[in-house]
Amino acid sequence: MVAEPGCAGTSTRQGPFADDCPSRVVLNHVANRWGTLIVTSLHEGPMRFHQLRDNIGGISEKMLSQSLRLLIRDGLIDRTVEPSTPPRVTYSLTPLGLELASPLRTLVDWITLRTDDIVAAQERYDRAQTA
Amino acid sequence: MVAEPGCAGTSTRQGPFADDCPSRVVLNHVANRWGTLIVTSLHEGPMRFHQLRDNIGGISEKMLSQSLRLLIRDGLIDRTVEPSTPPRVTYSLTPLGLELASPLRTLVDWITLRTDDIVAAQERYDRAQTA
Repeated sequence: MVAEPGCAGTSTRQGPFADDCPSRVVLNHVANRWGTLIVTSLHEGPMRFHQLRDNIGGISEKMLSQSLRLLIRDGLIDRTVEPSTPPRVTYSLTPLGLELASPLRTLVDWITLRTDDIVAAQERYDRAQTA
Repeated sequence: MVAEPGCAGTSTRQGPFADDCPSRVVLNHVANRWGTLIVTSLHEGPMRFHQLRDNIGGISEKMLSQSLRLLIRDGLIDRTVEPSTPPRVTYSLTPLGLELASPLRTLVDWITLRTDDIVAAQERYDRAQTA
């Protein structure tokens, strides 16, 4: 693991394992359901706000706006405004966001592939608890 | 993406993108800071409760217990009790959890590597907002 400047002195933990390091803040932005699903959606190509909203079941417009703002501030997503009437706003991954999309896409695909196994494990666990 | 049995009929979205699919529940368990840091910690090898707690900055014992219980129920983590006095409890990844650890490890390493770039992007964004 790579040491983080200005962080190593305050804790023996490194990177996102340290709760007082900037990388924990980054982890909080990307390692959550909405960050994961937004970045994975945009891995398919640029999207408009309503496309993202429709693609991600159960996300509110408020939560989507907030998550997009954080990811734009983190330099992971670009917001492009075309000067048409009305202005056409598009969201896309930056080169940095594209790097991040790779492990998140792998994670989403793995979950999709393995959900049956996980549901079977949950049922075994619940049967053992009630036995 | 792989279709999920009993799920395709209720939504045009698939896998974790659908909020009414079991894979969204799985996403909620693993795509969060604690799930990511617990699974990544155990990727190094089996650990006891206090080792996990000490390895993950800022996690409360309550939150660690709850997260472990969910991940054990999902079949991702094994809880082994040695019949000593007092009993020695160890947590380790199952073969399924080991598969999941790979993209999560890549994610954590990427965040550690790229935090400086992300912090620089945040500073550029904040300067542009106040300009």
